[in-house]
Amino acid sequence: MGEFDLIARYFTRPPRPGGPTLLGVGDDCALVQPSPGHALAISSDMLVEGRHFLSTVAPDRLGHKALAVNLSDLAACGATPLAFTLALALPRADPQWLEPFSRGLLALADAHGCELIGGDTTQGPLNLCITVFGEVPLQQGRSLALLRSGARVGDDLYVSGHLGDARLALEVFRGQLSVPAAVFDAARARMETPTPRVALGQALRGVATAAADISDGLVGDLGHILRRSGVGACIEAEAALSVIAARDALDAEQALGFVLAGGDDYELVFTAPPDARAAVQAASAHSQTPVTRIGRIEADAGWRLVDAQGRALQRQDQAFDHFK
Amino acid sequence: MGEFDLIARYFTRPPRPGGPTLLGVGDDCALVQPSPGHALAISSDMLVEGRHFLSTVAPDRLGHKALAVNLSDLAACGATPLAFTLALALPRADPQWLEPFSRGLLALADAHGCELIGGDTTQGPLNLCITVFGEVPLQQGRSLALLRSGARVGDDLYVSGHLGDARLALEVFRGQLSVPAAVFDAARARMETPTPRVALGQALRGVATAAADISDGLVGDLGHILRRSGVGACIEAEAALSVIAARDALDAEQALGFVLAGGDDYELVFTAPPDARAAVQAASAHSQTPVTRIGRIEADAGWRLVDAQGRALQRQDQAFDHFK
Repeated sequence: MGEFDLIARYFTRPPRPGGPTLLGVGDDCALVQPSPGHALAISSDMLVEGRHFLSTVAPDRLGHKALAVNLSDLAACGATPLAFTLALALPRADPQWLEPFSRGLLALADAHGCELIGGDTTQGPLNLCITVFGEVPLQQGRSLALLRSGARVGDDLYVSGHLGDARLALEVFRGQLSVPAAVFDAARARMETPTPRVALGQALRGVATAAADISDGLVGDLGHILRRSGVGACIEAEAALSVIAARDALDAEQALGFVLAGGDDYELVFTAPPDARAAVQAASAHSQTPVTRIGRIEADAGWRLVDAQGRALQRQDQAFDHFK
Repeated sequence: MGEFDLIARYFTRPPRPGGPTLLGVGDDCALVQPSPGHALAISSDMLVEGRHFLSTVAPDRLGHKALAVNLSDLAACGATPLAFTLALALPRADPQWLEPFSRGLLALADAHGCELIGGDTTQGPLNLCITVFGEVPLQQGRSLALLRSGARVGDDLYVSGHLGDARLALEVFRGQLSVPAAVFDAARARMETPTPRVALGQALRGVATAAADISDGLVGDLGHILRRSGVGACIEAEAALSVIAARDALDAEQALGFVLAGGDDYELVFTAPPDARAAVQAASAHSQTPVTRIGRIEADAGWRLVDAQGRALQRQDQAFDHFK
């Protein structure tokens, strides 16, 4: 199978009539037109075997994950997904891999109305690079996108869904941890097929003051919000512990480490003023996405952990860094 | 040096005031707003060491080339460059490589007013994935982009600049060929720092009937135009031979092979009706880009080569294919 057969067979579908794509796969460029009064939100994520996924992952799950981690960035901005490009380096053109990979990829794309509009294929060590496009409304020339820079002292601090379970699954794969099979299966699904919180992100537009997606661990991605907003945060240990689905299978220290710095979560961390608590709950209900308040924004830079009595707990957790 | 220091030091610059970028590097997404009445043209190219560049290439030249091959796709659509994302897998964070790489990359970006708005960095086998964004005017809801599908029987067939010299340089690197030093130096510059024909592409809007960029060799990329337009082409051997700069250093057979199927040229192949010859020359002059008429579009599918007397010459040249 040649390069162009491969693209035609697995990665070419006609653009949706009336959608934002004027021209899809097959020319030098794709052509996309955002809705009137909207800006385009753009994000790019590259996945490398052994860093972002294990070589043993099922190809359909990998297809899902490659797009999910990109949709998660759109979710963090409150953007509506439109389209994506896929650049793929493959050791060889293997239909046994390409068929399920494209199936998993396109199933998630269809679920979000996000069209594959172009990309590139080349021979090389397995590498998946997706660039995703969404749109956010403009109001008087300013976008309504959720940014990392809007958190204010006194805001509540929230996370969506579950944190730490993906890391638990990784530690089991690494042979560092043993948990009951049902716990592992659930955690493995979190690691291999994360759910991008697209509907929640959109529902939080005009409600949240700042948001980021959690890919490198909670304290790392929260750190981006804190630095860009010029604030700090206090995290309540008990609340944080409540967001790991596998809580009962772990001791508290380990569970807390997975929540704070596990990585690969693809949940949202966001802030909103206390008078928006009802609006946050409404956004959670509307998007059918659990949301947990885990602390608050303070003036002192950095983050700190406190117990139920407000006493400081010492932690050394750090974000994942590819070059440290 | 950590991942975020690396991004801050080498790949972060503030968006140009009044430009299309509402939000640049540093949030979950970048925000881009095309001009009113324009669609966004999008293309993605992935470069892998050993496939698209030699491990010995100077990093500043590689930075130039990684963006140039993407700008070449915008050129083929007649789009005006706006912005790009860069996803980078690196074996290690080496300032000695990153500094010249980013310098070469951003110099070409600045020359085209194309802003770096985001991307990703990860540890892994060296891989560069750029997604580039341009804009093309819309007229009554239809874009004025140059497409591959518009060639018509009777059109002239043109190429820009020089073809085959990049392949010559590669063959010298491979030890398959020996040429005088000055010939090699010029060819090596064509291979390592190609010139994307952005100004020519824009000047050809409304003049050319079809266009494509030549990355996999002339007959391969011309083939895309022919198939999508439902036509064929006749190429005049003498005219084709005139477009390789190193013509005098090669025998005719070899030179013709490099022109027809050399690859890595990043020139444009395009078609225009005979009554547009003056307009094509004006576009060439306006963009200061040489253009050569090398044949014509015919009804019979596929392409054929003819001598000065119109007699058919047998050729087996094929496009480069990553998986064949």
